[in-house]
Amino acid sequence: MTRFALTIEFDGTPFMGWQRQAHGPSVQEAIERAIAAITGEDAVVQAAGRTDAGVHALGMRAHVDIGRTITPFRLMEALNARLRPDPIAVLACEEVADDWHARFSCIARHYEYRIVIRRAPLTLARGLAWRIPVPLDLDAMSESAGKLLGRHDFTTFRSAHCQADSPIRTLDRLEVIPGPGGTISIEASARSFLHHQVRSMVGCLVLVGRGQWTPEDMRAALEARDRGALGLNAPAEGLYFVRADYPEEISG
Amino acid sequence: MTRFALTIEFDGTPFMGWQRQAHGPSVQEAIERAIAAITGEDAVVQAAGRTDAGVHALGMRAHVDIGRTITPFRLMEALNARLRPDPIAVLACEEVADDWHARFSCIARHYEYRIVIRRAPLTLARGLAWRIPVPLDLDAMSESAGKLLGRHDFTTFRSAHCQADSPIRTLDRLEVIPGPGGTISIEASARSFLHHQVRSMVGCLVLVGRGQWTPEDMRAALEARDRGALGLNAPAEGLYFVRADYPEEISG
Repeated sequence: MTRFALTIEFDGTPFMGWQRQAHGPSVQEAIERAIAAITGEDAVVQAAGRTDAGVHALGMRAHVDIGRTITPFRLMEALNARLRPDPIAVLACEEVADDWHARFSCIARHYEYRIVIRRAPLTLARGLAWRIPVPLDLDAMSESAGKLLGRHDFTTFRSAHCQADSPIRTLDRLEVIPGPGGTISIEASARSFLHHQVRSMVGCLVLVGRGQWTPEDMRAALEARDRGALGLNAPAEGLYFVRADYPEEISG
Repeated sequence: MTRFALTIEFDGTPFMGWQRQAHGPSVQEAIERAIAAITGEDAVVQAAGRTDAGVHALGMRAHVDIGRTITPFRLMEALNARLRPDPIAVLACEEVADDWHARFSCIARHYEYRIVIRRAPLTLARGLAWRIPVPLDLDAMSESAGKLLGRHDFTTFRSAHCQADSPIRTLDRLEVIPGPGGTISIEASARSFLHHQVRSMVGCLVLVGRGQWTPEDMRAALEARDRGALGLNAPAEGLYFVRADYPEEISG
């Protein structure tokens, strides 16, 4: 068996999420089906992180074990050919050690959340960003983001369905970055995140941006350690899994 | 009658182009249908430029005359509500003088052509850029672009279906701009363009980028004044109508 690490981009719009589901298409299922067609093997693809329905990826990492002899380049080409017309692309493929694990070896995960401030509906960016029809106070958002940095109990920002053992996480980065044409990127980095954590933090940052919350309300929400204190969960369509980092490699 | 100027963004993927067609959906038809639903009037919408099937717009300008009393803001809001689910959005709407004409008053048109250099299929940018699976020599492309600047007979870069009286145009700007993640933007500005001119120029620039043409071949193609000398017409999906300029206003 050879273990291959994949770097995967996908448009999450048509999928129920990364993970295989009984009642709808998933990214995992599409890739596993493509591998079965190429190799005749029923392989399981493990990802660095699960994504929800509608969440996108610019550089998801995953691994799979394949018995048949195939080069990483041929595997990547064959996967991209088989995955059409699904909006999933394998950007890179490499052989890795048998103990390299996309999820357990990962030491940092990076997400981006894209917002467009405008009144008119989105056309080219439909399904690819959260449209907010009112101005946002970016300074207040940045100040509030700072209050979430560091090691905390993030119960307030955690889905009721979260399966993690502990609600304690260390948030290394949460930045509000203005872009061209009324766009805003919110970039978040941590070793790992709780289920819905990025979307919940973004939702509350937007409440601050709209003036409905103060930065102090953000701190109080965090300290409440209570899902009931959550102000707003941002929609899935603005969220991108950007990159996963592993020891002894330059990722991206 | 009041004349309104509209600034319109659209995803050209599902349309036969801007202009009303007998055999398929067009952006013009969608907007005219929305106006009829709002006002009960059969108004004709005139655009700064016609776009081909699959070509997008970030800021198309158009005008329409409406008899019913309505504010620009209400018209814009009603249009955006009526245009759903078509990927067309009215970004701005203003009252203009009766002699303001989206096409004939326009003094400059700006296009952008988006290329992504990569082997893997596009997912999030599917239908929104031209994917080229090999490296491009940007310096050679920039040098070749310079050879097209100025006033020339652009017959080589003109569709056989072009309806313009003259093949003479003055190209004010043609720049090859590298972006993040293997993206390239080619930006073109002129008072007006011939049908297919931008796509034909971009197609030949890509031939140069791939090393199949030299910058001198580009000059020879221009001087041939012969459609048969065209090397390659770039696909519609990478082309964006960015902006139209009018006298005495700051556009964009």
